[in-house]
Amino acid sequence: MAMTSNKATWIWYPGDYEIWLGNKMNNRRTERGAFFPPFWKSDSHYVTVEFSTEVELAEAEEITIAVEGVFNIKLDGKLQFGQPETFLLPAGHHHLHIKVWNQATPPALFVEGATVKSNSSWKVTFEDKEWIDESGKASDTSATVYMQAGAWNFTREERPSAYTLCRRPEEAVSVEEVAGGRLYDFGRETFGYIVLEGLQGAGEVALYYGESPEEAQDTAYCETLDRIAVAADTVTDLATGVSNPLAERYTLGNSKAFRYLYVTTEGATVAHISMEYEYAPVAYRGSFKCNDEELNRIWKMGAYTMHLTTREFFIDGIKRDRWVWSGDAVQSYLMNYYLFFDSECVKRTTWLLRGKDPVTAHTNTIMDYTFYWFIGIYDYYMYTGDLAFVRQIFPRMQTMMEYVLGRTNQNGMVEGMTGDWVFVDWADGYLDKKGELAIEQVLFCKSLETMALCASLVEDAEAERYYAQLAATLRAQLKPAFWSEAKQALVHNRIEGVQSEAVTRYANMFASFFGYLNPEEQAQIKHSVLLNDAILKITTPYMRFYELEALCALGEQEAVMGEMKAYWGGMLREGATSFWEKYNPEEQGTEHLAMYGRPYGKSLCHAWGASPIYLLGKYYLGVRPTKAGYAEYEVRPTLGGLEWMEGTIPTPQGEIRLRMDRQQLTLTATEGVGWLYLPGSEEPQRIECGQTYTFNLN
Amino acid sequence: MAMTSNKATWIWYPGDYEIWLGNKMNNRRTERGAFFPPFWKSDSHYVTVEFSTEVELAEAEEITIAVEGVFNIKLDGKLQFGQPETFLLPAGHHHLHIKVWNQATPPALFVEGATVKSNSSWKVTFEDKEWIDESGKASDTSATVYMQAGAWNFTREERPSAYTLCRRPEEAVSVEEVAGGRLYDFGRETFGYIVLEGLQGAGEVALYYGESPEEAQDTAYCETLDRIAVAADTVTDLATGVSNPLAERYTLGNSKAFRYLYVTTEGATVAHISMEYEYAPVAYRGSFKCNDEELNRIWKMGAYTMHLTTREFFIDGIKRDRWVWSGDAVQSYLMNYYLFFDSECVKRTTWLLRGKDPVTAHTNTIMDYTFYWFIGIYDYYMYTGDLAFVRQIFPRMQTMMEYVLGRTNQNGMVEGMTGDWVFVDWADGYLDKKGELAIEQVLFCKSLETMALCASLVEDAEAERYYAQLAATLRAQLKPAFWSEAKQALVHNRIEGVQSEAVTRYANMFASFFGYLNPEEQAQIKHSVLLNDAILKITTPYMRFYELEALCALGEQEAVMGEMKAYWGGMLREGATSFWEKYNPEEQGTEHLAMYGRPYGKSLCHAWGASPIYLLGKYYLGVRPTKAGYAEYEVRPTLGGLEWMEGTIPTPQGEIRLRMDRQQLTLTATEGVGWLYLPGSEEPQRIECGQTYTFNLN
Repeated sequence: MAMTSNKATWIWYPGDYEIWLGNKMNNRRTERGAFFPPFWKSDSHYVTVEFSTEVELAEAEEITIAVEGVFNIKLDGKLQFGQPETFLLPAGHHHLHIKVWNQATPPALFVEGATVKSNSSWKVTFEDKEWIDESGKASDTSATVYMQAGAWNFTREERPSAYTLCRRPEEAVSVEEVAGGRLYDFGRETFGYIVLEGLQGAGEVALYYGESPEEAQDTAYCETLDRIAVAADTVTDLATGVSNPLAERYTLGNSKAFRYLYVTTEGATVAHISMEYEYAPVAYRGSFKCNDEELNRIWKMGAYTMHLTTREFFIDGIKRDRWVWSGDAVQSYLMNYYLFFDSECVKRTTWLLRGKDPVTAHTNTIMDYTFYWFIGIYDYYMYTGDLAFVRQIFPRMQTMMEYVLGRTNQNGMVEGMTGDWVFVDWADGYLDKKGELAIEQVLFCKSLETMALCASLVEDAEAERYYAQLAATLRAQLKPAFWSEAKQALVHNRIEGVQSEAVTRYANMFASFFGYLNPEEQAQIKHSVLLNDAILKITTPYMRFYELEALCALGEQEAVMGEMKAYWGGMLREGATSFWEKYNPEEQGTEHLAMYGRPYGKSLCHAWGASPIYLLGKYYLGVRPTKAGYAEYEVRPTLGGLEWMEGTIPTPQGEIRLRMDRQQLTLTATEGVGWLYLPGSEEPQRIECGQTYTFNLN
Repeated sequence: MAMTSNKATWIWYPGDYEIWLGNKMNNRRTERGAFFPPFWKSDSHYVTVEFSTEVELAEAEEITIAVEGVFNIKLDGKLQFGQPETFLLPAGHHHLHIKVWNQATPPALFVEGATVKSNSSWKVTFEDKEWIDESGKASDTSATVYMQAGAWNFTREERPSAYTLCRRPEEAVSVEEVAGGRLYDFGRETFGYIVLEGLQGAGEVALYYGESPEEAQDTAYCETLDRIAVAADTVTDLATGVSNPLAERYTLGNSKAFRYLYVTTEGATVAHISMEYEYAPVAYRGSFKCNDEELNRIWKMGAYTMHLTTREFFIDGIKRDRWVWSGDAVQSYLMNYYLFFDSECVKRTTWLLRGKDPVTAHTNTIMDYTFYWFIGIYDYYMYTGDLAFVRQIFPRMQTMMEYVLGRTNQNGMVEGMTGDWVFVDWADGYLDKKGELAIEQVLFCKSLETMALCASLVEDAEAERYYAQLAATLRAQLKPAFWSEAKQALVHNRIEGVQSEAVTRYANMFASFFGYLNPEEQAQIKHSVLLNDAILKITTPYMRFYELEALCALGEQEAVMGEMKAYWGGMLREGATSFWEKYNPEEQGTEHLAMYGRPYGKSLCHAWGASPIYLLGKYYLGVRPTKAGYAEYEVRPTLGGLEWMEGTIPTPQGEIRLRMDRQQLTLTATEGVGWLYLPGSEEPQRIECGQTYTFNLN
């Protein structure tokens, strides 16, 4: 939402702080003691930024000024002496410009007076073009590009560059001696900084982290580790080379994901080991409960998985990669709307994924991830109604789409070129990535539609026409290019104009819930593809998300309930304490831990594992916005085989609470106008906010 | 030149260190105690850079590694533990990748082993696209864009981010008590850090700098000043807020340009004031001497002006703006080739002026400055033969030209759009900037020719054809659009297809020495424009540079000698100790100090003031390269009214020495093949290097 309060807050160039903070976060990944930054372009902030506002003061007002960087103040075009902490604004109408330079961290500003306060109503530019002519006259800056300032919720004391997540101490639930070392179990998947107390002697302490006990104890193959050298008066992190004076407590410099920790020592001894759990201080605004305890456990573990992966940004998994990935993030956003409704984290993640111009690669280098990036913005607008953000990000949407349009083939379709990663999914079976993939065109088409919609939101009629025309042209080609009457489905791809024989679930499920198929075709693919076991099975929660969404959208909630209990319940039965990156029920034992050719390569806490959060909120409780920001919304509750369910769906400023069993439905909302579709009815009931409605279902 | 030695040196992403250092330098500008950064986009470095090389080792070799940033090492695709200071490379053929992250300063690397050494033969990329598939197989990175690393001459101990110019202490030549303060005279224009010794008491010291005594004493209007607060145990710079413990010596944190310093104190006292002169350690490789002592003084003062403005980069003037400006720089480059031959400073300045993509404005926001930027690169190649640099910069030349081509009108010509500064020159008279200016098209055409030439150098035949075609089309339009038979000249501009009545010198002089006019037209404009006092006079050394070059190119060395003595000699007679930004001989007294509506706005030490350095070297000693890097060169010496002259012209690896009087000419060169045109002859004599030639001129 746009900043509406009249509180002063730190401001910056929109996206710049997010990109800077994101680099810090992405670059905390390590692999067996090696620093492991992303392989795509890491962008940086504009180093010189001008902040400005106009004030109308009844009387003179003293403002206090805090800055991250070197700065100057211009009052009505006149430079002022020095870099003062306070400044007296005279009464009357004035133009205030503050220009800040900072190479290391984003230029940021905090201004506070009785009425003048820095917030997102201030304007910013990275290029003010304020030259003078030979008489000293200032230039015409009407072509200068100003943006509304970026902001979050930082108070004066909370310097943006010093931001950190919260921490709290936690103890292991058990310790046992194993093969000359000690194995600590922290009880469930967790994340934080190991704390070593009472270090003594001279030698090394080695820490091997594991999401499983097998991983922690496999010192040669565990994915992450730390090595500490202890000397008479110093402790040195051997991976980073950073030394600290020896003290009673030594906290590791980098956080790790683990449940188990295996510790060996040589020469040195350590008296006690604990951890500082690190977490984002999000509120659990959404809830779900029902008569099925397994489903309740699934929801709770989904929420915990989301909490672990909701950090400065929505990351993929906490052990590895700890990076922001667009395909993962777009799902985190959707789950987030039914759990934390943390809009700021969606915006931060969207900025970071986009980075700066020029675009030199697809988002995360992955073609499909570029498209999810676009789609995520329209979702964000629908759930939050935050038009100010659409206005800020739209120019970067345009340059991102220019990049895509610069890489289309003679049919106006996208094909993987060298340097493009055509991902789709991790599959246990061959996925052809050559030629025109149906799923990529479907996502591309939806992205073009998103561009047209966002262009209309920012009132750029010319851009709206342009993107709408491109979308319409591509959409008209989808069925001629990919629909096979013989297979009653969209085929997987087309190479040099020839449809392949392969049918996969991907394009069919997206085309179905995007509304690109007519009801008859939807009915066909439900049986020919979605419910057809002969079609390559999906073994990642990532694509199961869309597969089950497609089935829910086709009214198959009961079938999906069975799938959820089988698939996510399957992970529970395997002992999961958070949901996994990939789960193939046909695998056994430590096969579940392996991926990427490495015995513990798989992430056992992966955001995309948490999709029941979203499915239960949107397709069982049945709530979704129909006008931006829940100005209006619909509720289509479906028990899907449950006896009863109850839950809360957060909205931007309020919530919707629902309880339903086979007899009765109770509904309360504190925001927006709802349209409730009782089971079996297409006649909605209007729901006003602030009232409690009870409906008899018999 | 490309690095050919086998010494290890620090390396970085080409242009990134230069941009970072340039921000530091540009941002040292202050105006009366206010921080004054540029009004164009300040770019930044790629924060994550991968450096790589391939090695072939007969035996294992230990390398030492120094890094500015956090880093990892990958040997043959395998990540190594930690960030070690030494690493053992095994014998055999290996791929070594080192990836560095640094937000605050450019990622930089120094590697040294018996045979493996970091230098510009290493490759760098900001986006390695090294993802893996689900089996752990690495991606195809054949589309990854690698560049040759950027480098200069830093040894292991010289961390690039710690680079500073040299300093030496200097004393004032006189001090006098004036109106309650003290006026220090340092004898001539100078630059550096004021040193206060023996600070005592509690109160303030105010320092007012002046290039003239009037400026220093005018505390309300001098362009730069410092204010220091002295307390019992601290000294505080009131402009920056930076405090230091009180000590015997206090050196100001920022350098200033001045000859005079006016100091007032209140409460505090200061025992002694001196300065630390700051300078670039350049060698005076070029020289000029003749029988005319005034001309010798002009050359020496030109050299001193050049030395003061040759710093980390070639800046405009030392008092104000202390910025890198393209129009100023392109002249500094040319003077530099006849004085210091500091190639690195040309490259640094070129990188900084260009910045990074995307291009959001003309260079320094000025249309003409964009074109000088292109032209400077071809000059650089001709003088140095440094093809490696052309290869590094060519991609940014292309994106810069894309920007220009995206702003042409229906005639393919450039016109100032809002946000474009059409500068041309500071003129004492009206200069129309509307419509199609002839000079802008002439410079644009030369820029397109430069693009075609550089495309051929990097062997991009398609780009060469493209730019050559654009250049030819534009060139064919120049005379139809701007030549007036009635005026026997190119008119100043054309608005909506109609030639204006105005004729100015600008387009005519450039078109003349670019060879865009035929000999008959050249002869016409010499009289109708260049030697015609009715045409608006040029009052900046900046455009006098080209005006006199055009006359020299037309064989008017005797007339130009008179102009040099009148114009630059005029500044000498006004008491100049370095050459000025602007000089109108018709002004009187303190009128010479004013500019931009400010009484001391004018810079009295401006690089573009030093053009005699270039004119004397190129058109009197008569030396210029005809094949890149002085592989071949021509010498066309002309006394231009002098009795004798002698001088040295530096070449990349050597020099050309010449002495001439009316009877005899002696010539020696230590590099290249020369073609000497004796006065009055078009039959050149071949000059081999290493020999001394003497010719009788009677």
